[in-house]
Amino acid sequence: MAYPPALARVVELLSKLPGIGEKTAARLAFFILRSEDGYPIHLSEALARLKSETKHCSVCFALTETDPCKICEDPRRDRSIICVVEEASDLLAVERSHGFRGLYHVLEGSISPLDGRGPEQLRVKELLGRLQSDQVKEVIVATNPSVEGEATAVYLARLIKPLAVRVSRIAHGIPVGGNLEYADQVTLGRAIEGRREL
Amino acid sequence: MAYPPALARVVELLSKLPGIGEKTAARLAFFILRSEDGYPIHLSEALARLKSETKHCSVCFALTETDPCKICEDPRRDRSIICVVEEASDLLAVERSHGFRGLYHVLEGSISPLDGRGPEQLRVKELLGRLQSDQVKEVIVATNPSVEGEATAVYLARLIKPLAVRVSRIAHGIPVGGNLEYADQVTLGRAIEGRREL
Repeated sequence: MAYPPALARVVELLSKLPGIGEKTAARLAFFILRSEDGYPIHLSEALARLKSETKHCSVCFALTETDPCKICEDPRRDRSIICVVEEASDLLAVERSHGFRGLYHVLEGSISPLDGRGPEQLRVKELLGRLQSDQVKEVIVATNPSVEGEATAVYLARLIKPLAVRVSRIAHGIPVGGNLEYADQVTLGRAIEGRREL
Repeated sequence: MAYPPALARVVELLSKLPGIGEKTAARLAFFILRSEDGYPIHLSEALARLKSETKHCSVCFALTETDPCKICEDPRRDRSIICVVEEASDLLAVERSHGFRGLYHVLEGSISPLDGRGPEQLRVKELLGRLQSDQVKEVIVATNPSVEGEATAVYLARLIKPLAVRVSRIAHGIPVGGNLEYADQVTLGRAIEGRREL
């Protein structure tokens, strides 16, 4: 005996989510089935609206309900500096750090020849367009410290430097609260390489 | 800057699922947002149908699309033995083991005085009703090996024994493929207590 079809369908769909295997999907589906406060319907409605009500900013490609987004429109943000990230979720992570008051640019991916993703699939052209204005003095490349993210950073640096705009890369090193003993060799190597005078 | 409202709503709802914190919920929501094959709509529709299209069998309270369920209707199942489980998900777990060919009874919970759940909230009356027939010779109590599951097992045994029906409890012990060294004391104690002659 298997799950009833309606339940099997929810399990099947949930198990497509990243990090959710079939057992976890079944556990979640049973939880949803047992929940009593209209939760399945609320979740169903929220999912139905998700894509149609979430737009991309036509300037920086952040997720937004208004276009341009609130950050691009905010007069208090520093327009001389743009932080380039791979995904909209990365933008929100940087924003949560409260360490940056400039503008953003979401590439919507990274360069990955193995997956057939070249720079033309990314919002690189749009970034270069934004750099035509005299306002932008620096681009911080905050792509992930992965092979793809590093390749994207190197690619962007080569394109942007000739435009007389400073290009910087976020620092790699030991996470705050982290432990030298448990840090991997590459991170530790980067931490030493990127040392700063006290 | 926070998530756009439609995204925030999905994150909020997903983070109510068991084992899903806010960070995981955000990761899942971004995955859903980025998915391209109509996935959010499929998931939305599946969730909307989940409750209305999943019924409980009026005999054994298993999840089913037909009533009585396929197991209760199956003439090849052994009608002399009933396996009692806490939840419909436990029934499916026993069924997957292919170790049982009798009928089931889902209690829809366990006795837990601390949470205000007494036997009257469980499908105990319905179980006793099924035992009135001469067919049933044995009840296997397969409630969880938790305090509540054990209390439920003891309670059921006291009720059922006077009916001249054999009551048994599933074995507790070292999981297959498990390791003595890592087994907790209680499980190891139970494994020794429940030893069988070779």
